[in-house]
Amino acid sequence: MDFDTVIHGGTIATPHETWVGDIGITAGRITAMADKIAGGVRRIDAAGRIVVPGGIEAHAHIAQESSAGLMSADDYYTGSVSAAFGGNSSFIPFAAQHRGQSVDDVVATYDGRAAPNSVLDYSYHLIISDPTPSVLEEELPRAFARGITSFKVFMTYDLMNLGDKGMLDILTVARKHGALTMVHAENNDMVKWMNARLAEAGLTAPKYHAISRPGIAEAEAINRAISLATLVGAGLFIVHVSTPEGAELVARARAAGLPIHSETCPQYLAFTRDDLDRPGMEGAKYISSPPLRDAATQDVLWRHARTGTFDSVSSDHAPYRFDETGKFVKGPTPPYPAIANGMPGIAARLPYLFSEGVVAGRITLQQFVALSSANAARVFGVTHKGAILPGYDADIAIWDAEETRVVTAKDQHDAMDYTPFEGMRLTGWPVHVMNRGDTIVEGGELKADRGRGRFIARAPYAVPPSAPVVPEMDPATNFGAMIRP
Amino acid sequence: MDFDTVIHGGTIATPHETWVGDIGITAGRITAMADKIAGGVRRIDAAGRIVVPGGIEAHAHIAQESSAGLMSADDYYTGSVSAAFGGNSSFIPFAAQHRGQSVDDVVATYDGRAAPNSVLDYSYHLIISDPTPSVLEEELPRAFARGITSFKVFMTYDLMNLGDKGMLDILTVARKHGALTMVHAENNDMVKWMNARLAEAGLTAPKYHAISRPGIAEAEAINRAISLATLVGAGLFIVHVSTPEGAELVARARAAGLPIHSETCPQYLAFTRDDLDRPGMEGAKYISSPPLRDAATQDVLWRHARTGTFDSVSSDHAPYRFDETGKFVKGPTPPYPAIANGMPGIAARLPYLFSEGVVAGRITLQQFVALSSANAARVFGVTHKGAILPGYDADIAIWDAEETRVVTAKDQHDAMDYTPFEGMRLTGWPVHVMNRGDTIVEGGELKADRGRGRFIARAPYAVPPSAPVVPEMDPATNFGAMIRP
Amino acid sequence: MDFDTVIHGGTIATPHETWVGDIGITAGRITAMADKIAGGVRRIDAAGRIVVPGGIEAHAHIAQESSAGLMSADDYYTGSVSAAFGGNSSFIPFAAQHRGQSVDDVVATYDGRAAPNSVLDYSYHLIISDPTPSVLEEELPRAFARGITSFKVFMTYDLMNLGDKGMLDILTVARKHGALTMVHAENNDMVKWMNARLAEAGLTAPKYHAISRPGIAEAEAINRAISLATLVGAGLFIVHVSTPEGAELVARARAAGLPIHSETCPQYLAFTRDDLDRPGMEGAKYISSPPLRDAATQDVLWRHARTGTFDSVSSDHAPYRFDETGKFVKGPTPPYPAIANGMPGIAARLPYLFSEGVVAGRITLQQFVALSSANAARVFGVTHKGAILPGYDADIAIWDAEETRVVTAKDQHDAMDYTPFEGMRLTGWPVHVMNRGDTIVEGGELKADRGRGRFIARAPYAVPPSAPVVPEMDPATNFGAMIRP
Amino acid sequence: MDFDTVIHGGTIATPHETWVGDIGITAGRITAMADKIAGGVRRIDAAGRIVVPGGIEAHAHIAQESSAGLMSADDYYTGSVSAAFGGNSSFIPFAAQHRGQSVDDVVATYDGRAAPNSVLDYSYHLIISDPTPSVLEEELPRAFARGITSFKVFMTYDLMNLGDKGMLDILTVARKHGALTMVHAENNDMVKWMNARLAEAGLTAPKYHAISRPGIAEAEAINRAISLATLVGAGLFIVHVSTPEGAELVARARAAGLPIHSETCPQYLAFTRDDLDRPGMEGAKYISSPPLRDAATQDVLWRHARTGTFDSVSSDHAPYRFDETGKFVKGPTPPYPAIANGMPGIAARLPYLFSEGVVAGRITLQQFVALSSANAARVFGVTHKGAILPGYDADIAIWDAEETRVVTAKDQHDAMDYTPFEGMRLTGWPVHVMNRGDTIVEGGELKADRGRGRFIARAPYAVPPSAPVVPEMDPATNFGAMIRP
Repeated sequence: MDFDTVIHGGTIATPHETWVGDIGITAGRITAMADKIAGGVRRIDAAGRIVVPGGIEAHAHIAQESSAGLMSADDYYTGSVSAAFGGNSSFIPFAAQHRGQSVDDVVATYDGRAAPNSVLDYSYHLIISDPTPSVLEEELPRAFARGITSFKVFMTYDLMNLGDKGMLDILTVARKHGALTMVHAENNDMVKWMNARLAEAGLTAPKYHAISRPGIAEAEAINRAISLATLVGAGLFIVHVSTPEGAELVARARAAGLPIHSETCPQYLAFTRDDLDRPGMEGAKYISSPPLRDAATQDVLWRHARTGTFDSVSSDHAPYRFDETGKFVKGPTPPYPAIANGMPGIAARLPYLFSEGVVAGRITLQQFVALSSANAARVFGVTHKGAILPGYDADIAIWDAEETRVVTAKDQHDAMDYTPFEGMRLTGWPVHVMNRGDTIVEGGELKADRGRGRFIARAPYAVPPSAPVVPEMDPATNFGAMIRP
Repeated sequence: MDFDTVIHGGTIATPHETWVGDIGITAGRITAMADKIAGGVRRIDAAGRIVVPGGIEAHAHIAQESSAGLMSADDYYTGSVSAAFGGNSSFIPFAAQHRGQSVDDVVATYDGRAAPNSVLDYSYHLIISDPTPSVLEEELPRAFARGITSFKVFMTYDLMNLGDKGMLDILTVARKHGALTMVHAENNDMVKWMNARLAEAGLTAPKYHAISRPGIAEAEAINRAISLATLVGAGLFIVHVSTPEGAELVARARAAGLPIHSETCPQYLAFTRDDLDRPGMEGAKYISSPPLRDAATQDVLWRHARTGTFDSVSSDHAPYRFDETGKFVKGPTPPYPAIANGMPGIAARLPYLFSEGVVAGRITLQQFVALSSANAARVFGVTHKGAILPGYDADIAIWDAEETRVVTAKDQHDAMDYTPFEGMRLTGWPVHVMNRGDTIVEGGELKADRGRGRFIARAPYAVPPSAPVVPEMDPATNFGAMIRP
Repeated sequence: MDFDTVIHGGTIATPHETWVGDIGITAGRITAMADKIAGGVRRIDAAGRIVVPGGIEAHAHIAQESSAGLMSADDYYTGSVSAAFGGNSSFIPFAAQHRGQSVDDVVATYDGRAAPNSVLDYSYHLIISDPTPSVLEEELPRAFARGITSFKVFMTYDLMNLGDKGMLDILTVARKHGALTMVHAENNDMVKWMNARLAEAGLTAPKYHAISRPGIAEAEAINRAISLATLVGAGLFIVHVSTPEGAELVARARAAGLPIHSETCPQYLAFTRDDLDRPGMEGAKYISSPPLRDAATQDVLWRHARTGTFDSVSSDHAPYRFDETGKFVKGPTPPYPAIANGMPGIAARLPYLFSEGVVAGRITLQQFVALSSANAARVFGVTHKGAILPGYDADIAIWDAEETRVVTAKDQHDAMDYTPFEGMRLTGWPVHVMNRGDTIVEGGELKADRGRGRFIARAPYAVPPSAPVVPEMDPATNFGAMIRP
Repeated sequence: MDFDTVIHGGTIATPHETWVGDIGITAGRITAMADKIAGGVRRIDAAGRIVVPGGIEAHAHIAQESSAGLMSADDYYTGSVSAAFGGNSSFIPFAAQHRGQSVDDVVATYDGRAAPNSVLDYSYHLIISDPTPSVLEEELPRAFARGITSFKVFMTYDLMNLGDKGMLDILTVARKHGALTMVHAENNDMVKWMNARLAEAGLTAPKYHAISRPGIAEAEAINRAISLATLVGAGLFIVHVSTPEGAELVARARAAGLPIHSETCPQYLAFTRDDLDRPGMEGAKYISSPPLRDAATQDVLWRHARTGTFDSVSSDHAPYRFDETGKFVKGPTPPYPAIANGMPGIAARLPYLFSEGVVAGRITLQQFVALSSANAARVFGVTHKGAILPGYDADIAIWDAEETRVVTAKDQHDAMDYTPFEGMRLTGWPVHVMNRGDTIVEGGELKADRGRGRFIARAPYAVPPSAPVVPEMDPATNFGAMIRP
């Protein structure tokens, strides 16, 4: 039997080891790994290169309307292309339910957006803002059964915030049916209280966004979310952790053996609230929620990336252009609350993480594999990706660890007109990216056709049997045994 | 000048020291302290006795309707008499606003209940359940100006729960006007979720009350309350802390220098959830919110009493009789959610604390003074009570540290038909209790007239200048300086 | 009966309250406190002034040879005079055993130095560097019985360091006989390893002293000292805590209910290691052990002063002149290890603490009383000082809270030629200082005779019965019951 | 090219994933992994079996004299055979320097013991008890260069304890030359103090061993060891962590990013101090240092195994027979201090960990791989073992996850006459164990020749560049840059 493709002589990294050798690919799957593999319809010389599982981007807003009705600039074509240029082989954007919508309709809508357009394999995290009985009892379980086994909820934004009751209800559904709840954790009322204080004082420049969502609002909400999940006995994934206090809460929960997962994003490692005070409206480019913090925070978040608090570093790619279709949809000099939240980064995530992480000595190459791909695969039930092993999809990225480039907006290959990373020198870039054995990007060029990507049906999420429960729900006692659902 | 009364030869305790000597009282005030004081219209021999500031009971429900409309068994006469028999010289029950009521009406109503009846000096903590703009902007400041400088809010119960926004608004008012916010901290939605689980399982016996309000619901709410107060820069008093996790959160906040205060209650030190599983409906006697916990919790709470986490040990006297006027207002064998919450304890609080605390070696006599009287005076602005010093009201209790009695319901002198402490042997009892120099109780007999007690106008609460603020509100920065209210 | 002295109309502070009134003094003792006291052979008008218990300086090196044989500049006359000018009514310097000396000889020697000279009442803490069987079994118990119920040991310095075994042995003696062990906690081998590294690199300027004793050396030793004391079940007093990590260890031990006490010193609140880098040899003035740290440390230590981690703020007055009799006894430009350690501060301690603490809003007046006098009295068994109550010694300081002065060396009234506080503007100064009713300092003038001070026999130290023990020594188990000494 | 061996159809586990497929082995190395591999001189059917990297036993006493001169019962033949029966493909026993010996002699001696006898590949950790200048400057670096890149030191036992200075010196050498220091952390003086207390009380039965080495002695020493390593900037491996407090210290250090490693042992998970109170002298079988603790400790240690605090679970195989050659070398009923310390377990380690860990749901199969083999390989520089990847040694164990056996001493295949695990039912046993492609054990029979094992030269240990340093040694400051060795 010959191989479709043989990748030859690369330094191949796992979350635990590195080894040098060859990889044989047949019909989109890795079918062999060996010291040397002869033949191959196509042979790729990876000598001197780093070979890793292709990135799995687990946090991106693609072809998604915000609750305010604003459509993201990237669709599944530009979004997937940009992701591929950034070393990703697949991604899991959000499929957002707005209030009143059925989950079935949401999935159908996003299937219509993704299938004809994506150059990469994709799945969705649902976003649930309206957990009606029908959603909880029928629609969500139906989506889980279809392989969409994670969903995000919000503790902030008036139009999205589920409240504690909504959280408990949906966590209960997630636990029962084997799904993972993701949460945007910021205390809504704290933010609104700060907004009111700032409005009273007439403080509306972009920089005030940075203090309108104080760190304590994130820390409080993370503590509450962990508490709610712990009562229910459910797993939880805290998205875009941005504060030392929040990361510490996650770290403690994990040290206690709770099934709590989390991520941070490159922007929290790379920028600070000072970037919101750039001249004119430039600061608007750096408006995101949660907001950027300070330099001391960056060090702490890197430490948590290193010590395993974070499963992933994700982009939270939220592409709103620096024009009237995006940031300034409500006018050219809006007060900060009227500026679209979010910044792009799907192409920059992994080059940033590789350069400032691996090359700079903050993380190891093994940790890079874990943070970019392997952990996301495990946590989100992507059972055949995220590793270079026989039987796995040939989702592979080949990196040149020595190449240095300067980041420009143009090279992001997205639909955006800016990148917050503009002008940053980074060392280590993906030079060849595959998805199921197909070359997507090579030599700086797109090699894949629109719509070739396939939907990834994901496995259920399971709480480990060792996870502790609150004493009142302990099945070893009279009480808990009787009421545990 | 002669003295109205001289207390002679007692061992007098302060929060810091003890000394032996005489106390001279004139016109209701302590006017002299000395080795020896001659004369006195009346001389009281306190040789071999412990002389302490009379207890200040800071948590009691007297002549108060619950939000469900149930009136407490004790009015201001029986309540104050019972308090006096328990070693208290004054008390601060609640004056509860129900939704729709004006604070002015509430105060007037309680004045009408207290003034004609109380044998002890009294003040009120308001309870606010309806923080309308008028309440926040006018009625509360008016009550503060009148010397009612504290109020309680709830994070639980559908009819009382303010929500985070309500908390932030009222904390802002408290900070601005120098009042102290007290909070019953339990996560309402967690409790309701547990109630639903138990109801589904048909588990309605009294013992299930104990798990319907899990410890994590208290801990979560305490963390949230502290976070909300910290954002605002306000002080906070956490009532009836019942869990190790909750106490630890308070301890950490205090160690950080935050103006967070708290109390626990004797029932959490003395009983466990096993008491709710007593035969028949006996467990109903031990239903309170938060519920009783376990033996390990008792040890931890005693430690926090010792190390200063708790300012006070209060009774949370909530007198609902073990009959159809109280516990069983909804029938003789109601499901636990229909049983009135709370237990009496205004007379037992200090004898329990003295016996199981001081005599048993868990706290010192100085700590007893702090926990029973001096701290409550300081925290709640009772400027002329809580100490034995010239100029202070002659609110004094004389204790026989060696007398042992067995607690009975009858000896509580309240309007109740049971005491949870029934049958407990306690060593150390108050033998003479004064309020403003008048003997209230002596030799086991009431010596005071109905209605002699006076309203205590209390001083404002001030956040110490050293209390830390969240970085986003730091007045040393551009941002904080501009928006701090 | 008339009074020898009446202090009239002052604002009198306790660790818990303030009150306004009169104090009557007879034969050196406070015999009455009242609204108004008529008469008095002498009447002192304290209207508008703060009246507090006279300071008890609990950490000072007076008439003491260092282990290297260097005699401190101050003897019991200049030392006590300087202390009195600084608002102190008594002090407890060290009586140091050098290796080979008997404790009886040490006590006799210091009696000879103190009794003829001191203007203030005094006691001693022993310093034990040679815990022979005779010392442990006979000499120390004899000293305790004489009222010298505390002693200091060292975990650093080759000539002083007891080692863990020595610590365990002497803690066992302390527990058995009711004495309190004080400890200078720095890891000796760490310091020596750092010294070796610095010497190898030729780095000997004064500033290198600051890094030769790294914070981790203090934190490690504090943790070890607490562990040793906990095993034995003994109390412990950590002197001159200088690091956030060290203070945090003490705070945690106290929160756990352990009988661990501690102090910090004004120099750690006021200065930083940058002061060791002053031009020329000026940095030598700021050499002490443990060394000065940084600005962030100052904030943390102030917080611990406020939250009760520290019992006292003591001076660690170590008077070595800035000349060849002190700092430069080994030459004019010695390497840092040859420079005498320590700095003076017995006169500046309380004005610094009052001004930068009370006036600046970092501590309350009540906390000042606790940190300057009341806690030291309680912890060290000074049963009749440290409070303004009938029966206590009339050790009183009257402060003018509004006076501002600039600190100068001359005004310290010690035998030193410099003060590290030189040039500092402080607000709040003692204007009248008494010891046993005798005016010592008034109006900037010394009013007392050499040798009038008396030895203070102190009460034993008792571990509270509530203090936890290690499980292996738990008397509730088979094992512990049998072996607890 | 054909393969020497093909393992077919197994479920192959890595520390991160599992996959099903074939493994091809040539000349002792894994040369291919694929869905299916045809051919193979030998084909092993692993369908339905678990295939993992062969265990690496990283803590065993083989052919080693104790400091008291007692020779372990197992030599390199019986020790390696027993290890192989327990699922291990290699091991790293200790090569112990006694005082006065040169390291070169030690290595030569152990080479003489191991090379002719071991059936498995082996390396050594040195034990250093006499760190003379020659040892530090020449002999240790020579041993490191030979691939012996780890060594153990003791903080306890009079004949072994290095003291803090010795620790600092040797940690400095380790950092400089890229070796890893292992440490037995118990405070020697605490243990001796307890021994003295017990001896005074005449308490010498085996059970008293359990309290003679209290948990606080381990926790203190671990804190000190971490502090010493942190000052030096060196890595550290804490062996046989047995207490919650000790594990928590390691966990905190790791969370801070420090290069601190650790292990626990099955005995601390499986037994308690009650086992030392078995009838007669049976308790002697369970005497080890540190001693067994309690049931609550077991739960906590399992949690730390799960959350990554421990790199490994090692056996600490210390084979002293239950006769006059071992436990009773000093007589038939010796006092506990005269009983040889340690228990066997090299064959039981992995079956215990698999059964009570993986099968019981306390750890995952991936965690089993990490704890049994992969982490030890990484931490100790065994670069070509511990993973199933092309290029790695074919060190493979095939497990039957469903087989249940009862542990007996006989089946341990060691030189011992007892096993502490006697009678325990365990599910999951290794059925085929290879080392470099050679079958060592199959079908319950030994298949390998004495002396076939080879010495493993190990790679240096490197502190990650991201590891924090103490501020005083921060190379970013003037000070640190100058003195960091």
